[in-house]
Amino acid sequence: MNLIEVIRKKRDRQQLSRSEISSFVKAYLTDSIHDYQMAAFLMAAYLNGLSEEETAALTEEMLFSGKVVDFSDIDRPKVDKHSTGGVGDKTSLLLAPLIASLGGCVPMISGRALGHSGGTLDKLEAIPGFNTQLSLDEFRKVVKTVGACIIGQTEEIAPADRRIYAIRDTTATVESIGLITASIMSKKLAEGVDALVFDVKCGSGAFMQTEEAALNLAKSLVHTAERMGKAATALITDMNQPLGYAVGNALEVIEAVEAMKGAAKTDFLGLCIELAARMLVLSRLATDLDQARLRAQEAIASGAALDKFRQMVEAQGADARFIDDYSLLPQSRYSCEVVSETTGYVKSIDTRKVGLIAMSLGAGRSTINDEINYAVGLHIEAKIGDYIEQGQPLCKVFYDEPQKIEAVKRQLLECYEIGFEAVAAPSMIKEVV
Amino acid sequence: MNLIEVIRKKRDRQQLSRSEISSFVKAYLTDSIHDYQMAAFLMAAYLNGLSEEETAALTEEMLFSGKVVDFSDIDRPKVDKHSTGGVGDKTSLLLAPLIASLGGCVPMISGRALGHSGGTLDKLEAIPGFNTQLSLDEFRKVVKTVGACIIGQTEEIAPADRRIYAIRDTTATVESIGLITASIMSKKLAEGVDALVFDVKCGSGAFMQTEEAALNLAKSLVHTAERMGKAATALITDMNQPLGYAVGNALEVIEAVEAMKGAAKTDFLGLCIELAARMLVLSRLATDLDQARLRAQEAIASGAALDKFRQMVEAQGADARFIDDYSLLPQSRYSCEVVSETTGYVKSIDTRKVGLIAMSLGAGRSTINDEINYAVGLHIEAKIGDYIEQGQPLCKVFYDEPQKIEAVKRQLLECYEIGFEAVAAPSMIKEVV
Repeated sequence: MNLIEVIRKKRDRQQLSRSEISSFVKAYLTDSIHDYQMAAFLMAAYLNGLSEEETAALTEEMLFSGKVVDFSDIDRPKVDKHSTGGVGDKTSLLLAPLIASLGGCVPMISGRALGHSGGTLDKLEAIPGFNTQLSLDEFRKVVKTVGACIIGQTEEIAPADRRIYAIRDTTATVESIGLITASIMSKKLAEGVDALVFDVKCGSGAFMQTEEAALNLAKSLVHTAERMGKAATALITDMNQPLGYAVGNALEVIEAVEAMKGAAKTDFLGLCIELAARMLVLSRLATDLDQARLRAQEAIASGAALDKFRQMVEAQGADARFIDDYSLLPQSRYSCEVVSETTGYVKSIDTRKVGLIAMSLGAGRSTINDEINYAVGLHIEAKIGDYIEQGQPLCKVFYDEPQKIEAVKRQLLECYEIGFEAVAAPSMIKEVV
Repeated sequence: MNLIEVIRKKRDRQQLSRSEISSFVKAYLTDSIHDYQMAAFLMAAYLNGLSEEETAALTEEMLFSGKVVDFSDIDRPKVDKHSTGGVGDKTSLLLAPLIASLGGCVPMISGRALGHSGGTLDKLEAIPGFNTQLSLDEFRKVVKTVGACIIGQTEEIAPADRRIYAIRDTTATVESIGLITASIMSKKLAEGVDALVFDVKCGSGAFMQTEEAALNLAKSLVHTAERMGKAATALITDMNQPLGYAVGNALEVIEAVEAMKGAAKTDFLGLCIELAARMLVLSRLATDLDQARLRAQEAIASGAALDKFRQMVEAQGADARFIDDYSLLPQSRYSCEVVSETTGYVKSIDTRKVGLIAMSLGAGRSTINDEINYAVGLHIEAKIGDYIEQGQPLCKVFYDEPQKIEAVKRQLLECYEIGFEAVAAPSMIKEVV
């Protein structure tokens, strides 16, 4: 097979066969196709799109470039959730133990913060001693004994995806539905799950800014999962404001633990219940959504979810006593409030900018090699629809570098739009695929 | 400047500024932009096109990545012709000395055969001793003393083009009007000419198969040349059959010499006169096309063009006696005729295939490293519109490998379509830009 012909066909909008995609990726992994040829293919795929068949073929090829975890000795249902990323999204920390406490297994391979978006691994690593770099064997063991485990992508998982992603990241070919789908799915399917729930974020803090783009990605993810024989569903959820209140790693761990302790209802907890309900129904751990929601709420009220979280934390090498004493988590040296300059209703929050501000404090990474400061971050005090008087706090800043704080405060004020007219809080779930 | 942003803008169909293109190419030449990033850019440029401004900026950047020959000490007009390549195109061999004999200077930097298409350098190298690898200094000297010199691209000419072309060649990004224009123009402008005539071939033996594609390229070439302050014109010419009669290096040298000796009129000589006339008018060596055609015909009739050719051959290191004794050129060991199996009119000739057959005999290259056999080739005995009887020759084959000849004869027969109805010979010049 002439592999330049594969690039040419994609360039000319011709359908690629499974074997053409397979040969091209295999040749890339054995260095008979060069990085620059892959880059040309990726740009052609970006601009001309990938069909569902092509996306599935690319997914499968990248998946089988590495190992797939074998959970055939566990008869409990294996299920996972994947979020497309946003600001303040700590749902995985709650969902994994919650589902495990209800009889499911959650073998979660997760990611790190980049740009305005946070990462589950960094949040967990805010817990002193928490090890996200388990081998696949250790991962299997924790999933088997505890029912939930959250680790980072290992060398053994989808190496083709890692190499291709590195190219995409520096060639402006990231935001492609087909390529995103294949990248996500090749890693998620390596977890050996039976079912997948996708949380596709949409809004000012999401990669997909419009509902249309989010819906296209959601459909692509669900259809590809189904083609690969997995039960799947996707929720398009609101990311026009940070999820919950905390933005920053240790702060988000505390918010997740508080939610598991049964603290006041928030949009964050509400989303967790909806995602958990889908995971339970897809796994046949509940017969319908209403029953599933109830079971999830009970697992939190009874403390079962928190118990499971404690077990997971210990199984992954950390001391779980921080759950009862947050002072054992990293603490920022300073904190201050940003107060509103006007009276009115919170009309909008530039969520991407909020994420970038948290990143600039040290909570995130602008490049993959940046170090994270686990203590710093933001606490959102006013959300969309809230009535706020002049001088009342919009958010609280936890920081270590006093020389930055005046600029940060000014930037945070710019994120908030306050209007005279009453505004409804945005609905969390915009669509279900 | 964020250079990934340059790729993204081209991807999103946004206009790139001169400084963005300049920074991107400069970064590539200093290795801060990698081959794979250039490849992504090239595919985006292929699929979304380059505007005239972008094409001119890319041309200029590639041009000034290398040297531009300085002919300011020669007060005669400097003019060149560029052909997009085809089968049997030996016009440069005649045009360069012809224009020099009429007071112009032709500093021609030319190319090699690849695929079905021949190359001027290979044709000249069929002449024992002919040196196409002069330094730019030697090149200047021959142009100054003789008025015409034909050499290959040196390391000093447009190195950016060489690197970028190597990427395009293996990423299916060759056939792009903007990229082809920048590649051609960056080399042609390095010759230090005042005027350029483009011969854009169109038809079954050309890279541009349709008149529309040829016209688009012609316009792009002429407009870019004019933006760079050069007088320019383009002819769209027929390549639905080999030009003239000879296909193959030594055979084409003989055909060019025969034409300069005043042999019978052919489509080849007709095209030469038309191209020469444009070169003379653009250079103000003639006041109008009619006068220019007359001057060109006279320069052939008087032997002035042939004299100049003889001088050029000697200045480039070869013995010119072959002009009067073709046996001094490489000779094939065998020859045979391919005869028509039917009686009728030649309706079409698959010219690309004819070129590939000549290549398979050894006259061309399938890859850039192949060695050329200068002696072998074809002599076309019947052209489109000719009436031919069963058993009469369609073409003659000059070959060195008898084991191939039966297959070659069969393939050549397949190139010819013979019909019952009379067919007009195609007109040589389809359009002028």
